[in-house]
Amino acid sequence: MTGAPAAPALELVTIGNELLLGEIVDRNSAWLGQRLAAAGIRVARRTSVGDEPAAIAAAISEALDRMGTALCTGGLGPTRDDLTKPVVAALFGRELQLDGRLLDQVRQRFAERGLEMPELNRTQALVPAGARVFPNPRGTAPGLALEDERGRLAILLPGVPAEMQTLVEQSVLPFLLERWPERGRPIRHRVLRTAGIPESALAERVDDVVQKLAPISLASLPTVAGVDLRLTSWGVLPAQEAERMLDAAEAELRSRLGRFIYGLGDEDLADAVALECTERGLTLAVAESCTGGLIARRLTDRPGASAFLLAGIVPYANSAKESLLGVQPRTLRDHGAVSGEAVREMAEGARRVSGADAAIAVTGIAGPSGGTPAKPVGLVWLAAAVRDAVRIESHRFLGDRLEIRERAAQAALLTLWRMLRTEVL
Amino acid sequence: MTGAPAAPALELVTIGNELLLGEIVDRNSAWLGQRLAAAGIRVARRTSVGDEPAAIAAAISEALDRMGTALCTGGLGPTRDDLTKPVVAALFGRELQLDGRLLDQVRQRFAERGLEMPELNRTQALVPAGARVFPNPRGTAPGLALEDERGRLAILLPGVPAEMQTLVEQSVLPFLLERWPERGRPIRHRVLRTAGIPESALAERVDDVVQKLAPISLASLPTVAGVDLRLTSWGVLPAQEAERMLDAAEAELRSRLGRFIYGLGDEDLADAVALECTERGLTLAVAESCTGGLIARRLTDRPGASAFLLAGIVPYANSAKESLLGVQPRTLRDHGAVSGEAVREMAEGARRVSGADAAIAVTGIAGPSGGTPAKPVGLVWLAAAVRDAVRIESHRFLGDRLEIRERAAQAALLTLWRMLRTEVL
Repeated sequence: MTGAPAAPALELVTIGNELLLGEIVDRNSAWLGQRLAAAGIRVARRTSVGDEPAAIAAAISEALDRMGTALCTGGLGPTRDDLTKPVVAALFGRELQLDGRLLDQVRQRFAERGLEMPELNRTQALVPAGARVFPNPRGTAPGLALEDERGRLAILLPGVPAEMQTLVEQSVLPFLLERWPERGRPIRHRVLRTAGIPESALAERVDDVVQKLAPISLASLPTVAGVDLRLTSWGVLPAQEAERMLDAAEAELRSRLGRFIYGLGDEDLADAVALECTERGLTLAVAESCTGGLIARRLTDRPGASAFLLAGIVPYANSAKESLLGVQPRTLRDHGAVSGEAVREMAEGARRVSGADAAIAVTGIAGPSGGTPAKPVGLVWLAAAVRDAVRIESHRFLGDRLEIRERAAQAALLTLWRMLRTEVL
Repeated sequence: MTGAPAAPALELVTIGNELLLGEIVDRNSAWLGQRLAAAGIRVARRTSVGDEPAAIAAAISEALDRMGTALCTGGLGPTRDDLTKPVVAALFGRELQLDGRLLDQVRQRFAERGLEMPELNRTQALVPAGARVFPNPRGTAPGLALEDERGRLAILLPGVPAEMQTLVEQSVLPFLLERWPERGRPIRHRVLRTAGIPESALAERVDDVVQKLAPISLASLPTVAGVDLRLTSWGVLPAQEAERMLDAAEAELRSRLGRFIYGLGDEDLADAVALECTERGLTLAVAESCTGGLIARRLTDRPGASAFLLAGIVPYANSAKESLLGVQPRTLRDHGAVSGEAVREMAEGARRVSGADAAIAVTGIAGPSGGTPAKPVGLVWLAAAVRDAVRIESHRFLGDRLEIRERAAQAALLTLWRMLRTEVL
């Protein structure tokens, strides 16, 4: 594509050996993707290349050929492996010129910290002829924009996240939005979080509804906590109309999947349990053996846990199950610690010793060792109790130790949440 | 480049709208970059595209043209936005064929969980003609490798990190290393993990040693757990020579920083505590208020915790501090729950009620609310006890709620670890 592009879309090019070597995770691309999408600008592709002039030139040149606009981060520092600026200057056939005002600013930044500017930093004040300079209030490398006679645009930003983000907010987004007055197509998301149903079963329940949701699109994203359903409105204007459509799509999904949907966005199932407990004025205690503190940790990750959580107990040894929770030695001897009988006594004990209204208890075999044919790795017994009502379940979870623990914690929270939601208590 | 490539290098192509939209951070690329670099295979470029057939085909095709080998992740699930397999089959001119054995395996995975396979999952058993199938022990989407008559190779892997990683370790790396016997310039890392010393103080202690370590390079990476020191050997051959140099560099750092170094690689401080307890035959109990189960979870994340951990107690409410740990009401009234007196009684109580030899106790104000001028957010009291010896410390941690919790857990583990290492017990 050549000529000033009509569609507000661009490609990202992130530069640095550390990206290819996996020494750092490319969070800049994710941040830019979100920020641009929210502004109605589509990221059509992302490319990462190392600190080699030919590779940088090829990636930027291809991005310009495809989409007309390339937003590049990294390789703008003062050291010898920072090559982006000379490479792009050559690509656009421009000389690098010393910008006296920029040089003063760089000197000034060092002076503010009582330092003399190392000579190496002179390169920070070199600017390709005709480039637009975006001031960098947080560092010494300015942002730059170069446009050729065909309207192809390369934007160069430093790779330090705080500097890059400030430059985008203060200079680059306003510049792009002025260039693309016809944007629109803003993207809005809503994520519905589900648990207790596999991705394929979810898909079958919503398969016929996908058409009906258009122009809202639906994607399912499996995680160890369950499956997230992501609704996306792309290009619906005005914003209220997009929200109305998302509301309608959410209502449709809730009518089919209501009992599996525990939250929106980044809400944790522990938050949903916390909300139910707090609203009903119920106190909670947790007794967790194989999950080893995972449920208590999740319940206390966010503020406000002291409003309902009285205690967590991790009775890892059998002796602790007896001494801390009053589990009967006979139960452990006859049925074992991983059994419906034991988990029931754990839940009852948690309520009794803490005085809580409700309790969760979990016991299982997280592995990798400790399994037997009768009680294999992944076998988990859980109990949820609200006053005298108790639900007991057994599950067989797949995965490694950490996954089994995560899935067990999630299943136990889900069981209590469903009790709180559906039962007359 | 066409023909089977002589140089062990490839390109990564990660697929999914969620990457371009920045909804997830592309950790797969970082993990693959590290893992391949360690095996002497260079990642020459990374590309991310959305769930569009034309974009997927173009990205993979260009990668094959440039480097001869493309390693692709994502878009292999059973839902309609999973397009990688048909796109690549078309690119290589292959039919998709139902693999009966794979279908049985997928059905089996569902059967193991007592579920019937949803019909949608039949697509998981479709394989491009002539493709090599890598079994996926952790999910239903197998890995696939397709090679054309010119020796160009596409490897397709699911995007779920645990599945992708297992496939790489078990199948893809052995396959690539057999293909490229002449790999070279391997990168070897060794990470020394430190806690209890700020990055700047570390830097001062090792500043003059950096020259001496060459050609091993040193980088410091601050995390919420402390500061990691990463030693890197690049291109040193043979492997034994690289290991010898890393050993020497490690010894040099240990001689200067011994008491701050608690582990290597991804070892957790909890692992170091577990090792000390297990080797000395000491049992442990944990009483944690503000850390809410974090320490117990870390101690039980890895197998073997049952050898030393008797119990964890999260006495979140004051009533639970009294009933579960025997903290005196007078102590809570006169000094408050966040005090040296209370944390001492918590540690003693944890030992008493569990019968453990050693104990850790933590109480503090994780925020964001609950702080006062006398007891601000971030104030944490901790205790470590081994038999009758007790150490009590107070800290003032900076950061948000989660960071304060992490730092408090780390400090408490560090205090116990140092007692176990240095004191005659």
